[in-house]
Amino acid sequence: MAAEEAAAVREQAEAVRRLKQDKAEPERIAKEVAKLLEMKAQLGGDEGKHKFVLKTPKGTRDYSPKQMAIRERVFSAIINCFKRHGAEVIDTPVFELKETLTGKYGEDSKLIYDLKDQGGELLSLRYDLTVPFARYLAMNKITNIKRYHIAKVYRRDNPAMTRGRYREFYQCDFDIAGQFDPMIPDAECLKIVHEILSDLQLGDFLIKVNDRRILDGMFAVCGVPDSKFRTICSSVDKLDKVPWEDVKNEMVGEKGLSPEAADRIGEYVQLHGGLDLIEQLLQDPKLSQNKLAKEGLGDMKLLFEYLTLFGITGKISFDLSLARGLDYYTGVIYEAVLLQQQNDHVEDPVSVGSVAGGGRYDGLVGMFDPKGRKVPCVGVSIGIERIFSILEQRVEASEEKIRTTETQVLVASAQKKLLEERLKLISELWDAGIKAEILYKKNPKLLNQLQYCEDTGIPLVAIVGEQELKDGVVKLRVVATREEVNIRRENLIEEIRMRTSQL
Amino acid sequence: MAAEEAAAVREQAEAVRRLKQDKAEPERIAKEVAKLLEMKAQLGGDEGKHKFVLKTPKGTRDYSPKQMAIRERVFSAIINCFKRHGAEVIDTPVFELKETLTGKYGEDSKLIYDLKDQGGELLSLRYDLTVPFARYLAMNKITNIKRYHIAKVYRRDNPAMTRGRYREFYQCDFDIAGQFDPMIPDAECLKIVHEILSDLQLGDFLIKVNDRRILDGMFAVCGVPDSKFRTICSSVDKLDKVPWEDVKNEMVGEKGLSPEAADRIGEYVQLHGGLDLIEQLLQDPKLSQNKLAKEGLGDMKLLFEYLTLFGITGKISFDLSLARGLDYYTGVIYEAVLLQQQNDHVEDPVSVGSVAGGGRYDGLVGMFDPKGRKVPCVGVSIGIERIFSILEQRVEASEEKIRTTETQVLVASAQKKLLEERLKLISELWDAGIKAEILYKKNPKLLNQLQYCEDTGIPLVAIVGEQELKDGVVKLRVVATREEVNIRRENLIEEIRMRTSQL
Repeated sequence: MAAEEAAAVREQAEAVRRLKQDKAEPERIAKEVAKLLEMKAQLGGDEGKHKFVLKTPKGTRDYSPKQMAIRERVFSAIINCFKRHGAEVIDTPVFELKETLTGKYGEDSKLIYDLKDQGGELLSLRYDLTVPFARYLAMNKITNIKRYHIAKVYRRDNPAMTRGRYREFYQCDFDIAGQFDPMIPDAECLKIVHEILSDLQLGDFLIKVNDRRILDGMFAVCGVPDSKFRTICSSVDKLDKVPWEDVKNEMVGEKGLSPEAADRIGEYVQLHGGLDLIEQLLQDPKLSQNKLAKEGLGDMKLLFEYLTLFGITGKISFDLSLARGLDYYTGVIYEAVLLQQQNDHVEDPVSVGSVAGGGRYDGLVGMFDPKGRKVPCVGVSIGIERIFSILEQRVEASEEKIRTTETQVLVASAQKKLLEERLKLISELWDAGIKAEILYKKNPKLLNQLQYCEDTGIPLVAIVGEQELKDGVVKLRVVATREEVNIRRENLIEEIRMRTSQL
Repeated sequence: MAAEEAAAVREQAEAVRRLKQDKAEPERIAKEVAKLLEMKAQLGGDEGKHKFVLKTPKGTRDYSPKQMAIRERVFSAIINCFKRHGAEVIDTPVFELKETLTGKYGEDSKLIYDLKDQGGELLSLRYDLTVPFARYLAMNKITNIKRYHIAKVYRRDNPAMTRGRYREFYQCDFDIAGQFDPMIPDAECLKIVHEILSDLQLGDFLIKVNDRRILDGMFAVCGVPDSKFRTICSSVDKLDKVPWEDVKNEMVGEKGLSPEAADRIGEYVQLHGGLDLIEQLLQDPKLSQNKLAKEGLGDMKLLFEYLTLFGITGKISFDLSLARGLDYYTGVIYEAVLLQQQNDHVEDPVSVGSVAGGGRYDGLVGMFDPKGRKVPCVGVSIGIERIFSILEQRVEASEEKIRTTETQVLVASAQKKLLEERLKLISELWDAGIKAEILYKKNPKLLNQLQYCEDTGIPLVAIVGEQELKDGVVKLRVVATREEVNIRRENLIEEIRMRTSQL
């Protein structure tokens, strides 16, 4: 135990040293502090009775009021966009029957959180919002809906939390379900990603687009056996994180593909471009002979025509290396990435990857329907955690002071023994819809009350004193200018409304 | 299998019979339908390949767009109130370390959902928002905060869903943490309950108030041994659901209390009233000799003085039978119940119980602090599921048409081959912040486009036709009046803004 303690003390000292080093990494500091607290708790407190670890579960975090204020801004921009495009909103439970999730996620299924069998149904936490949406459509026999859904999803990953990746994280999903003319809903999904990323002013971004049919056609003409399409697709999906050589080794070594087939794939996945590339591939002697690839390329061409009408092709790249991990896509797929920013105020820019992704999944609803009836769907999911990380760092680096309450007025007193008068006045204000606070003390000092307004950004103080009570007035003080004016009690509510609507 | 099938068929017939009987219970019908679907799925579909059950987990439900619209109204009223009282907002993960929840809920702990041990930490879904809040305060060494938190919590109960009780349900919590002068924050919590229930117009309500110290003092003077305070308190808590005789039997039979002590408790728990009852009990020869009871009664008197200043004592009842189930309360406790409504438009009023509850818990944060440092807290939790059930029934019964989107204008075409023009125009509208939709068809009929507006409540239609394109105008149609007017293209956005701000 002595050796263990000594080791822990050394580790503490090391952690403190690290803490001093890097001032620019609040998240890492928070982690170090949590580690210190954990070690302290394990060593035992003073009374040795609180030995548990005081932390949130691995891969999760709390949101403080300041972080919530930033989060609300992001949500508001996203929800505004979804509503601008006429979406309804739904909600589903945080867990589903385990079998609802089975067979939908391919190799990623191992990351699903299961609930303990405590008798009754076997349950799992939702892994995304798409499968619950498909279950909802099939269960309610809905064949036509445009909806959004913003909620937390759960993946037992080993996330790099400094890069805004977590085990519990929000997804903001917009999907269009129904049998429609080709590529019109698909184009709208891309327009939505473009609008949201522009609106949030996250710097330059690129939306990569591909089509599962083009990928499958490409696999076929490269000599991949049908049975290996999905697993080779998974390998291609890793290209944004590891170099081609590693991906090739996985294809050949682990997945038993011939080196020649892999090399042929290697040439295709280097290609990216716009309408010109689509035209070129439509002329490709091999691809143009493949029915699936031809269909996919034809639709891709139509998609680019619509995106041209929307004026957004400048940030869209048809990219043959884009594969997406999930099994259920059947047509167009896309993924938005933020590009490294140059003229940025953030000292230490986070390197972020994908911030949005999605695609067409025409078979998923049919997997839930007793008769296998299909409902074609296309959708997009915005991942706010990475976006949030960037905005949070930006706020930290700037001088911007974020208010975490909306209080308009503090009801204060200048002398002692006026608690009752403060309570009567604040009650009137609340009933009139004014956002008001008091300090929870019988006899607070005026200075402390004014300081509270400075600290929390409350713009006005309504001061009751003995003289004011006699005169039937309240002294209204503007915190910023220190201006004070007596307002007749019956006019106070109107005066506060008027003054705070101008702020 | 044949016998099983026959039984299933009989059960189906029985379910159909029950379905026909009760037309007034949509939720029960939904359950029966789910049961039928489940049986059908178990018997196998046409191809016998989709054998899984298509449902949400027991005790949970989806929210449809219409239900979401009602839910948003309720949330908005609650959040407005919390903000009016100057609260910040926080968020915590949906699960906590299992040990964080251990020892906080007394007899209710058996209802906690655990996650499966998949390696790593042992986790449980949160049971309420209070324990995560206390963990958050201790972990971040926060000694002073007024915050709200709206999120889902999880209890493995056997809920009566027709009465708005679920295993997954929202809690809307407002809490004040910090060392303050007595009963000022406590009174504000009751004011908040009063404001929210008044604002939501749910009919008459009553807020019952008691104090754990008064209860403990009462148990002491009735002859309950100290070690049985909490378990006897649990029994008293059942008084709102079962008659006194059953509670007494539990106390005496299961919990080993003497019949005499139980009878003495039985007399006290009949009492309820206002300031007069507090005064009477302060004179009670036994209670007034008990230190805890005296403290509690003194604070109760102060509380009623503050509630009088707030003008809300009319709906507050000091009630000695109120106990609250949870272990962590240390002072004032309260619970709001809706009273049976008389002049109500709902044909079959739901019988609802508690819609809000809370109290003071001065010891909970200390349980998490390594040094046991206490942070006094008081708070209230609004349970929206029951409120939501009532409002949903009210909407069903009324003729009110609820819009589930906010779309201002449908971009339509009068002739064929105008998809490109529609896409160009709607893109301009979206970029200007106008909420706009198109039908996802190349050549939709004008009648279908107008019908879509009728169905979804879209007030305006912007119609492009060949003549309009030549003239540089768009035909703007008001759906309600069928009025049509040509607007110059460059003025269209301004015109739509003007017309929809008036609606």
